[in-house]
Amino acid sequence: MEKRILSLLVDNTAGVLSRVAGLFSRRGYNIDSLTVGVTADERFSRMTVVCNGDEQILEQITKQLAKQEDVRDIKVLLPSGSVVRELVMLKVLVKPEQRQNVVSLADIFRARVVDVGRDSLMIEMTGSQSKLSAFIDLLSDYEILELARTGVTGLSRGSDDVRFL
Amino acid sequence: MEKRILSLLVDNTAGVLSRVAGLFSRRGYNIDSLTVGVTADERFSRMTVVCNGDEQILEQITKQLAKQEDVRDIKVLLPSGSVVRELVMLKVLVKPEQRQNVVSLADIFRARVVDVGRDSLMIEMTGSQSKLSAFIDLLSDYEILELARTGVTGLSRGSDDVRFL
Repeated sequence: MEKRILSLLVDNTAGVLSRVAGLFSRRGYNIDSLTVGVTADERFSRMTVVCNGDEQILEQITKQLAKQEDVRDIKVLLPSGSVVRELVMLKVLVKPEQRQNVVSLADIFRARVVDVGRDSLMIEMTGSQSKLSAFIDLLSDYEILELARTGVTGLSRGSDDVRFL
Repeated sequence: MEKRILSLLVDNTAGVLSRVAGLFSRRGYNIDSLTVGVTADERFSRMTVVCNGDEQILEQITKQLAKQEDVRDIKVLLPSGSVVRELVMLKVLVKPEQRQNVVSLADIFRARVVDVGRDSLMIEMTGSQSKLSAFIDLLSDYEILELARTGVTGLSRGSDDVRFL
């Protein structure tokens, strides 16, 4: 049971997100994350789905996805042939005297402080899931007030086999 | 008709994504983007929905969301009181002699080159939607081969009224 990342090119229409999500959930198939955004061509959106579970069920789901009229292309992003990233934002309870410690930690991870409150810092960071987890783990010495992550997005390397935007 | 950003705290379960997306799509209500990821507490996920459309329908949808058992909290992120960000990855067709131009452009936008191919560059950038659009516009002088964006995520400023992770 390995993590799989699917990159779908879909029509940019109202129902496509719930249809795709529904294909997974109807089989009780757990999605780790799903991101969607329009491409450079506004008629299409790119959807990135991270999932892990039974290989056979995933194959069924992929086949059903391929049959959907509004799904234009399906690619599997393999770790060796792609770059995947996620964005996380978190707000940490930080007393003024602790502020410099947290800022230094952020610097090491090339994270950015995007807001400073009297007793909190808001930090934005992008990276692989393992990098984000390492950072979040280190911050657990402080109280994390809120955390929002986008889920994973990614692209295949190189310029071959690119059929669509 | 203004852009609205909803930040939902939901249970981290299989069906919640398609249920929330379905609430919008059944009314033909267009979601600009939706991101979802687990919070620091793995029982919960934070979902950020950007939408724009009829104010009354949105109010109905919000009321229905609030009734869902697996929706724990709903916040509206207002521009003045929150920080919102999006991650975009794009692959650009770049001849070796153009490479430096594109890298310089990326530097100005504090974007990062994450992969270099013989005739392509892959770039990762985070920022507000307007910053991303400005960057993508500038890159349209080159051929954008692929583009994936996560959709918007965000947090409210300060440390007040935080009830959940």
